Amino acid sequence: MAAPVKVYGPPLSTAVSRVLACLLEKDVSFQLVPVNMAKGEHKKPEYLKIQPFGQVPAFEDESITLFESRAISKYICNKYPNQGNKGLFGMNPLEKASIDQWLEAEGQSFNPPSSVLVFQLAFAPRMKLKQDENQIKQNEAKLAKVLDVYEKRLGESRFLAGDEFTLADLSHLPNTQYLVNGTDRGEIFTSRENVGRWWGEISSRESWKKVVEMQNSLPPS
Amino acid sequence: MAAPVKVYGPPLSTAVSRVLACLLEKDVSFQLVPVNMAKGEHKKPEYLKIQPFGQVPAFEDESITLFESRAISKYICNKYPNQGNKGLFGMNPLEKASIDQWLEAEGQSFNPPSSVLVFQLAFAPRMKLKQDENQIKQNEAKLAKVLDVYEKRLGESRFLAGDEFTLADLSHLPNTQYLVNGTDRGEIFTSRENVGRWWGEISSRESWKKVVEMQNSLPPS
Repeated sequence: MAAPVKVYGPPLSTAVSRVLACLLEKDVSFQLVPVNMAKGEHKKPEYLKIQPFGQVPAFEDESITLFESRAISKYICNKYPNQGNKGLFGMNPLEKASIDQWLEAEGQSFNPPSSVLVFQLAFAPRMKLKQDENQIKQNEAKLAKVLDVYEKRLGESRFLAGDEFTLADLSHLPNTQYLVNGTDRGEIFTSRENVGRWWGEISSRESWKKVVEMQNSLPPS
Repeated sequence: MAAPVKVYGPPLSTAVSRVLACLLEKDVSFQLVPVNMAKGEHKKPEYLKIQPFGQVPAFEDESITLFESRAISKYICNKYPNQGNKGLFGMNPLEKASIDQWLEAEGQSFNPPSSVLVFQLAFAPRMKLKQDENQIKQNEAKLAKVLDVYEKRLGESRFLAGDEFTLADLSHLPNTQYLVNGTDRGEIFTSRENVGRWWGEISSRESWKKVVEMQNSLPPS
């Protein structure tokens, strides 16, 4: 049996949890390697060898190391096509193109405002940092515009890239989870009929429920 | 002969020029469809049908329409594997994974600060808008950190994803062109030995020189 792939970083990180959700969908066994960010382990030379930006996650499979959660997720789908959810990254070039398109929309349009809001609304209070009301307001407006586009799209198709759950939907889970369940602003999603229906559907996947369980259990020491 | 693919939007847009560089590398014939952004054509219902976010570019090939410049570029490479530069998106899954990784680094780490700087330093003065010194300072510092990682990487390999020019390098051309040639801050690139060598090499590709020519000629009326 092949050795499990390794994921470096804490499941509470949105980027780490994106990769974990993908591995669980694809039924690929993995080992989680703790990176103590409070102690600055992500900035140490040996870690920078596999993640030169000093961020999480980093990923190892046999002799390959990778960083960037969306690139790692695509690699997992391409490397293990016949395991778990076979259509997660599409079954043909046209499906892949549609998934790539909505995955880029997530990375370029959805992620920037939603990750600012996750930090300001969910993390800053836990870290006893002052919230920046101006940033919150600006990014709520940006996110609302993106979700208006999603609302229309999700009125035409069940999921973002088509009729099946794919990487494009999966990639939205980490930030949306924090915003819907860890702040009082979940309405920005749930007040939109199609976005709310979609969120209900993607967040109740077994893979994601397992990631949330991992997040809620004690971090590895 | 197949009809040329269509690219909607002005070549002066960084995202449009990314797609044009890819088409020229891949030797795929294309038709440029003007979108008059000053007149708000990118927000009109017929355009929003193919680009729901109201941005440029949009792309059409036979019956498929796509948006997001990086997703369009991958589609072009996958659809036309045997034309032009055959290795642009790699020749096997491991090469593709490395390209995807550095393309994500571009989209997630390089693009955010560099596109703010392109706007503040190159476009704002032409549009007679006041520059935000604070934003310029913050984003110069962010970009410098990213380029420090690139400097190390480009000391180990000729191009970002390996020994060949790929989509990962190509995707950096649009913003870097403006910063090196359209502002007085080109030093942030050229003062770094490996980054400067790399920039010289990627910016002198015939494909990119043609894009710059298109940018410098009069926009289509």
